Amino acid sequence: MDYKASGVDIDAGNETVRRIRGLARSTFTSGVLSDIGTFGGLFRFDAAAFRDPVLVSSADGVGTKLKVAFLAHRHDTVGIDLVNHCVNDILVQGAEPLFFLDYLGTGRLSPEVAEQIVSGMACACRDNGCALLGGETAEMPGFYADGEYDVAGFIVGVVDRPRLIDGRAVAPGDALVGVPSSGLHTNGYSLARRIVFERLGLAVEDYVPELGRTVGDALLEPHRSYLSGVRPSLGSGRIKAMAHITGGGITENLPRALPPGTAAIVDRRAWEVPPLFEWLQRSGDVPRDDMLRTFNMGIGLIVVAAAEDAATLAGSLGGWVIGEVVAAQDTGTGHRVSFP
Amino acid sequence: MDYKASGVDIDAGNETVRRIRGLARSTFTSGVLSDIGTFGGLFRFDAAAFRDPVLVSSADGVGTKLKVAFLAHRHDTVGIDLVNHCVNDILVQGAEPLFFLDYLGTGRLSPEVAEQIVSGMACACRDNGCALLGGETAEMPGFYADGEYDVAGFIVGVVDRPRLIDGRAVAPGDALVGVPSSGLHTNGYSLARRIVFERLGLAVEDYVPELGRTVGDALLEPHRSYLSGVRPSLGSGRIKAMAHITGGGITENLPRALPPGTAAIVDRRAWEVPPLFEWLQRSGDVPRDDMLRTFNMGIGLIVVAAAEDAATLAGSLGGWVIGEVVAAQDTGTGHRVSFP
Repeated sequence: MDYKASGVDIDAGNETVRRIRGLARSTFTSGVLSDIGTFGGLFRFDAAAFRDPVLVSSADGVGTKLKVAFLAHRHDTVGIDLVNHCVNDILVQGAEPLFFLDYLGTGRLSPEVAEQIVSGMACACRDNGCALLGGETAEMPGFYADGEYDVAGFIVGVVDRPRLIDGRAVAPGDALVGVPSSGLHTNGYSLARRIVFERLGLAVEDYVPELGRTVGDALLEPHRSYLSGVRPSLGSGRIKAMAHITGGGITENLPRALPPGTAAIVDRRAWEVPPLFEWLQRSGDVPRDDMLRTFNMGIGLIVVAAAEDAATLAGSLGGWVIGEVVAAQDTGTGHRVSFP
Repeated sequence: MDYKASGVDIDAGNETVRRIRGLARSTFTSGVLSDIGTFGGLFRFDAAAFRDPVLVSSADGVGTKLKVAFLAHRHDTVGIDLVNHCVNDILVQGAEPLFFLDYLGTGRLSPEVAEQIVSGMACACRDNGCALLGGETAEMPGFYADGEYDVAGFIVGVVDRPRLIDGRAVAPGDALVGVPSSGLHTNGYSLARRIVFERLGLAVEDYVPELGRTVGDALLEPHRSYLSGVRPSLGSGRIKAMAHITGGGITENLPRALPPGTAAIVDRRAWEVPPLFEWLQRSGDVPRDDMLRTFNMGIGLIVVAAAEDAATLAGSLGGWVIGEVVAAQDTGTGHRVSFP
């Protein structure tokens, strides 16, 4: 018996590394000291640029959006999703990304598919000025169904401590600025897939008139990065807190950005919920509260700012004022976020 | 339809976060500024302690060793494996760990299993002085078989650039010091499982006289960390390069630590291959070259040092001098590592 007989193809692994190396190299910023293939990725940290540097790090996956990628045989967009999700998760604390690493677990490794996934990651890394510093590709026979995989991303960024956004300054009377999402981002796909593929019986290539595009295109729309939009306002002191609207929707994510004693009232009529969400709600008979707790409903980022700064921020971010911060006892519902 | 009906249990997710929070907190070092539950984990970087800090980062998984954990219903050891694998991967470049994050993908989330996994990670993080700064737990219905999961780890450490270990000083005549592994570590499990569970038809609870323990205990023995052993020699200048012996064995990992123009000759009789490897080789009729390319064969770390430092290093690391560095054309086999 040998290793290949047990289902692990070391040559496919080496071929994958060869294909990935150039993609990763295309993302290398000046800090990168290593090449792909070393045990650890090396990143020179420019300590002189910070008074009191704080590293900010996050780990994320793409969730069952991957199942849509499998159906559509399209694997680059989930790579973009993964990077942008991570970028946003550290951005909400004021951090700009330094580097990103990925983990790719598969049953049988296809160098072509791995290359597609990593090409999406590399593209998003370049867009965000973030180095793809390394990663792990694991062939695990008997773990994943044929043609399937899971993928996780890890990001490290930095913020100077005086510029750290931690929500401490948030106070009743502050405004909530909602910034549009580009689609479902990476959350709610277990429910969305059930509605679309099981209840409606659609296929990824089916065209949906209400959406003006195919099911696959609508569901695979990449998770957008908010870095370029938010960056000009970082360090301005105008942003008091930010919430990345991921799993759990506005309902569960906005409270994570608010200090004790405060709550939020969100005006659901302040923005137009995109057709994709309306279509899913209608097609699945999903209760409104479940929609709000499952999907981003068209708002991918919420910025908390003083009321007098809100209109300017909304303008520069392409968003809308969608609500306000109140004292915790004032929501009248016992919830940290209410949607009256 | 709602989210729970689609197979995602947000309450189980929240219960998991509740159980994990205390475990993570037990690992917090003085640099940690955040608590579990924020979007990104915050780690204050003590820039004043370094002249020219280089962040070293790595991503890893546990591979199909997880299948043994599933069979044994024991989930803490794979958490230890994950952390120690990551610690070793950055240690070989001279870095000491700052923080660790994990990704856990499951089909149906069991808070009890997640807690076991994270308790192993937290234990290993404490042992290595590394903060468990955050992570992502993803419930992905239809992705993993019932009771199964995949897990990935991500580590960030730091080394001062003058102390970076990059193999540049390695020259013909240098010695190779092999440091014992604690078992299979996290590699070769697809082949090992095939031999043990299919060919031999054993179960995890079966006792193996040659090993003096059960199959499960032998195969789940945690991947050891080399940090505490190597730390006293970091910065001594005596360590010229290190190779963490993971997937691909000595054959593929030792060359990663060697500069161009050099190769290695390893004397297979210089250390006693532990019974577990002999037993697997015999039971599976595995060719010797495949054994060396698949398993660590009892050597989990190789340190490259000047010949005159080798005996001292071997003594302090509890290892043996197992070979030497030669000029690349001198292996006589065309391979970067030969085992004459």
